[in-house]
Amino acid sequence: MNFASDNTAGAAPEILEALAAANGGSSVPYAEDELTARVERRLAEVFEREVAVFLLATGSAANGLALATVTPPYGAVLCHEASHIQRDECAGPEFFTGGAKLLPLPGAAGKLTPATVREALELMPPGIVHFAQISALSLTQATESGTVYTPEEVFSLAETAHEYGLAVHVDGARFANAVVHLGCSPAECTWRAGVDVLVFGATKNGALAAEAVIFFDPARARDFALRRKRAGHLLSKSRFLAAQWDAYLADDLWLRLARKANGAARMLAEGLNSLPGVRFYWPVQANEVFAELPPRAAEALRSSGARFHPWLVPGDPASGQMIRMVTSFATQQEEVRKFLDIVQAHTEKRVT
Amino acid sequence: MNFASDNTAGAAPEILEALAAANGGSSVPYAEDELTARVERRLAEVFEREVAVFLLATGSAANGLALATVTPPYGAVLCHEASHIQRDECAGPEFFTGGAKLLPLPGAAGKLTPATVREALELMPPGIVHFAQISALSLTQATESGTVYTPEEVFSLAETAHEYGLAVHVDGARFANAVVHLGCSPAECTWRAGVDVLVFGATKNGALAAEAVIFFDPARARDFALRRKRAGHLLSKSRFLAAQWDAYLADDLWLRLARKANGAARMLAEGLNSLPGVRFYWPVQANEVFAELPPRAAEALRSSGARFHPWLVPGDPASGQMIRMVTSFATQQEEVRKFLDIVQAHTEKRVT
Amino acid sequence: MNFASDNTAGAAPEILEALAAANGGSSVPYAEDELTARVERRLAEVFEREVAVFLLATGSAANGLALATVTPPYGAVLCHEASHIQRDECAGPEFFTGGAKLLPLPGAAGKLTPATVREALELMPPGIVHFAQISALSLTQATESGTVYTPEEVFSLAETAHEYGLAVHVDGARFANAVVHLGCSPAECTWRAGVDVLVFGATKNGALAAEAVIFFDPARARDFALRRKRAGHLLSKSRFLAAQWDAYLADDLWLRLARKANGAARMLAEGLNSLPGVRFYWPVQANEVFAELPPRAAEALRSSGARFHPWLVPGDPASGQMIRMVTSFATQQEEVRKFLDIVQAHTEKRVT
Amino acid sequence: MNFASDNTAGAAPEILEALAAANGGSSVPYAEDELTARVERRLAEVFEREVAVFLLATGSAANGLALATVTPPYGAVLCHEASHIQRDECAGPEFFTGGAKLLPLPGAAGKLTPATVREALELMPPGIVHFAQISALSLTQATESGTVYTPEEVFSLAETAHEYGLAVHVDGARFANAVVHLGCSPAECTWRAGVDVLVFGATKNGALAAEAVIFFDPARARDFALRRKRAGHLLSKSRFLAAQWDAYLADDLWLRLARKANGAARMLAEGLNSLPGVRFYWPVQANEVFAELPPRAAEALRSSGARFHPWLVPGDPASGQMIRMVTSFATQQEEVRKFLDIVQAHTEKRVT
Repeated sequence: MNFASDNTAGAAPEILEALAAANGGSSVPYAEDELTARVERRLAEVFEREVAVFLLATGSAANGLALATVTPPYGAVLCHEASHIQRDECAGPEFFTGGAKLLPLPGAAGKLTPATVREALELMPPGIVHFAQISALSLTQATESGTVYTPEEVFSLAETAHEYGLAVHVDGARFANAVVHLGCSPAECTWRAGVDVLVFGATKNGALAAEAVIFFDPARARDFALRRKRAGHLLSKSRFLAAQWDAYLADDLWLRLARKANGAARMLAEGLNSLPGVRFYWPVQANEVFAELPPRAAEALRSSGARFHPWLVPGDPASGQMIRMVTSFATQQEEVRKFLDIVQAHTEKRVT
Repeated sequence: MNFASDNTAGAAPEILEALAAANGGSSVPYAEDELTARVERRLAEVFEREVAVFLLATGSAANGLALATVTPPYGAVLCHEASHIQRDECAGPEFFTGGAKLLPLPGAAGKLTPATVREALELMPPGIVHFAQISALSLTQATESGTVYTPEEVFSLAETAHEYGLAVHVDGARFANAVVHLGCSPAECTWRAGVDVLVFGATKNGALAAEAVIFFDPARARDFALRRKRAGHLLSKSRFLAAQWDAYLADDLWLRLARKANGAARMLAEGLNSLPGVRFYWPVQANEVFAELPPRAAEALRSSGARFHPWLVPGDPASGQMIRMVTSFATQQEEVRKFLDIVQAHTEKRVT
Repeated sequence: MNFASDNTAGAAPEILEALAAANGGSSVPYAEDELTARVERRLAEVFEREVAVFLLATGSAANGLALATVTPPYGAVLCHEASHIQRDECAGPEFFTGGAKLLPLPGAAGKLTPATVREALELMPPGIVHFAQISALSLTQATESGTVYTPEEVFSLAETAHEYGLAVHVDGARFANAVVHLGCSPAECTWRAGVDVLVFGATKNGALAAEAVIFFDPARARDFALRRKRAGHLLSKSRFLAAQWDAYLADDLWLRLARKANGAARMLAEGLNSLPGVRFYWPVQANEVFAELPPRAAEALRSSGARFHPWLVPGDPASGQMIRMVTSFATQQEEVRKFLDIVQAHTEKRVT
Repeated sequence: MNFASDNTAGAAPEILEALAAANGGSSVPYAEDELTARVERRLAEVFEREVAVFLLATGSAANGLALATVTPPYGAVLCHEASHIQRDECAGPEFFTGGAKLLPLPGAAGKLTPATVREALELMPPGIVHFAQISALSLTQATESGTVYTPEEVFSLAETAHEYGLAVHVDGARFANAVVHLGCSPAECTWRAGVDVLVFGATKNGALAAEAVIFFDPARARDFALRRKRAGHLLSKSRFLAAQWDAYLADDLWLRLARKANGAARMLAEGLNSLPGVRFYWPVQANEVFAELPPRAAEALRSSGARFHPWLVPGDPASGQMIRMVTSFATQQEEVRKFLDIVQAHTEKRVT
């Protein structure tokens, strides 16, 4: 019953097997190997257009380097106040950009709106020397609240951003979960909706350590390779990074894994929803469930060894009661059932 | 009728004369001259304790270098969302600290409260590797809203900050105006109230370009001199910086100049207060007046050549009607009177 | 016949198997898993003392973060002018340190000497505000010239460095090859000789992507974890990094793999040595051979598909004739033999 | 007898007077005042072409910001190993560029040659991801050895640099002294010879604290204003910076002051040259004299209160005997005479 995070899971067997298959013989290092080239072509197919692709081992590096490529050191990035880049990367984006500023904005259910974005831009419009130059808008898809932006929402946010000359970055650590929820094509919810650069995550969804930064306008990627190298994020034995991606994309493995994770979250949410004393914070659209459980149920879960984190929402002290439950491709229905049984056992007692 | 900013004024005659007096003969460069040493001793007297002093030409440099000395690159600084370091220094603190994060907090009338500070610290407590490590609390004295923290307010904020191991930084670009308002000793509203490092401004209050960074615990200043040098802020002919400070502190010139500025602001505020259709935002405690004027009055002022800026408050779109009027040591009573006359002429018409 | 680099090889089977064994079940992420703890304990045994250990995926990150931990942003690092940190990391150390300076020094056969180090220190002694503060000495072991510092050499360099308050860093991307050559204990050629922080490489010697930064004085490592996180180098599924290390250290696999690599280099060197027209640059002590071959031999090798790089020595334009041949744990004796046969075929012709 | 540095002198009276004249009345701050605009136009006339001009208070800031504008953070700058940016700015250029690398090159008499520059570029050619991307060539004019590049020398260096896509930066802290020596127009030894960006110094030559960065292709200056602001180098009361420049350029004051400094150096050199036991290192072309004096003469000078610095040349331990004597616009013939008398008194004794 580990719902602490999707990164407590191991790797999908297909991906581990791909590593073994990639071993043996010599291979050109530093991302100039054939397997890397194949993944690059494959991602162009997945997104139905020419793209510039860079593989990396971590999402924080992918976000930081992507933002650094579109934001000067005297720039600023608009993001949600609960976003990973603002809260959970130890000032990483500031490091990679050489000191650009993150401007955290509020927004219900983890989402930004065009109105909030516009207000921030009017408070610090680009072109005035005293202000950090707002250069990028960063969205998280699926969001840190387990919700998913529709293509239409992305489109209107990107439209506002582009009006002011901003680049649109998407932190897609859980991009697969979002695509599965939306049921749309990867193109539809990214560049067709105005996204300029996507961090496409694989680590949380079955890889060992594999992310891809995808520039939909390859010209924008001009110096990414140099930034990746100097940050120590260019792997020498790059075939082992490419192998994970090759397997991840083969036969829609990425979508199949995300479907399992989302399915487990839905099962968990539906189970909890039928119980008294459970309060949901946000709709469950990806692989995360945020809810307030009866205190005795939470306690009983903890004593049974279940793992999950309490969750605080900026600006909402009452959120201290909330817990976050994350599912993954590896979550077993049995685990969910057991978890629900314990909650039920301790809520029914209360209401009877 | 220039109320655009206190930096549109020139220099006080006493300070210009001191430059001329410092000229002639050889002098050891790079802050090792005798005049610099004299200013250091003088500041120790002003603050009634041993201090480490560094003279600089700009407030942005002083803030950035002071924060860099107490905040690691993976650190974070709590500050008001309207503070100069957050809004008006083009990501300067991020530059000087090597990428530390600024965490902007709301607060009425430009002031932070212990409760807001504590809430931010509980959301990102120091010691967790995922979070930027909150390392400093920055206050602005007088604030960007023209208000002044009492020593008691500073004390309780500093107490909260110290509880979590933070350093307390004060951006005192208008420190003289605050001291004059409080009528307290410089010690009382700084280190005796828990301030660790003060940026003591002279530029806005009659100098050409002169600020002082003052560490109340000299041990904390250990590497400031190196940071100042590498940022190009160590003047070679340092006597000309010291000369400004020497004159500024002599015979309480700094307090006399600030009294003139504050007096002009009070005169302006009282005059406006007696008029219908004028709405104040915040109490007038230093040398800034924030008010909403009848639109026709504002228009008439502009046509008469009066200078002032519109002012936006983060999170308050209605603030778009507000204007900021700043006075300085050089503001003439005649200017204030003329300004008030124009407003009166255009408000009376409206109410009649 | 791939002698281009030791990173063109794949992974040792034992290490791949360890990945598979580590999969399955939940595991605490972010280096707080049990396998990481086991590796930390194991490295303390290998080095016969308490150490602070940090696992990473690349050597450039390991070097940059290690240097950043012991060098302030206004600091400087003494290093060999041909070192990897100076030449092959795209200004990575400057990035990680926040702008510290690298001071490249000359030295025969890739090695620095106490005299050169002392001369550099006397030219820019620490404590003078105009100079970048020399804070670290970086050695490469085995060197970029395929030579190995004896423990005595390390000792006298470290002694000079410590006299001026410098930390001693060792880039041990090929540390295993050096230890095998020296036949000493890991402790003997590191902390017992004065090394403060070691980058212990596994990637070039059979891992997929695995390096360890080892601080011999754990107190010095204080903020490494935060720097690693913000640089995007803290892997979430850290067990897969630890698993590589666990296998690498088990049953002295690391030494066995390095012995194979060094043996192949020796075989190559001895074979070349017996041929006319071959000039060696430096003694062959690890897994690299630097030599000038008869031009026709080099050409013939290239046409046969052999891979190796030309090599330029700073300050020695004549070095343009030199090639570098690198062996690895995966180099087959058959490859070496075939390579030598081709050279022989084209050198004998020349001399007849 | 202060020959320690040209920055031990005060300010020229004309420049101090200009400060007083600029005082009084309101003025738009932040380099948008009329006096700044006038200086910009004046510099365009001096250089006989459209230029982008930025005024600053220190040369280190001017160099760092100029280099940052033409060098990306993953870039590198070629410079002389004795240059101010390499030796005397406490890693400032690394700070301003966000971590670009300085590559120090040797060269006789403080000068670089096309051959050395080309060799460095061939060792680390731009376009290879492992190397810091060499992006700029920095020359010092007059050099740190008191010599002056001819326009022809600048031309051939710039030609080599441009061939590889580098920008050419000139640190002209002593530009006036060089122009006076060359007797050419400012245009001739800068943009007509291929210089892209010039740091034009006034501080060492009679200003209080005033430098100008001049881009000969204004398009290259695009983000300089933002970098200056965030580094705390945009003075609010900018008229006082502009006033210094206005006076410096009026009636060729800058050339007149430099002529006095160069003349004093020539007088000193000629006087020393006639004495036995004095060895010169480099030709005396600007306002610096480097020589080895008989030890007793040096001692006697010191006891008489004369000020000068010993000078070390990288790579030349024998240079420990050398001293540097710097003259300025304020040096009196009487001082030089007295200095020479003392040397003579102590050299004649030796040879008798």
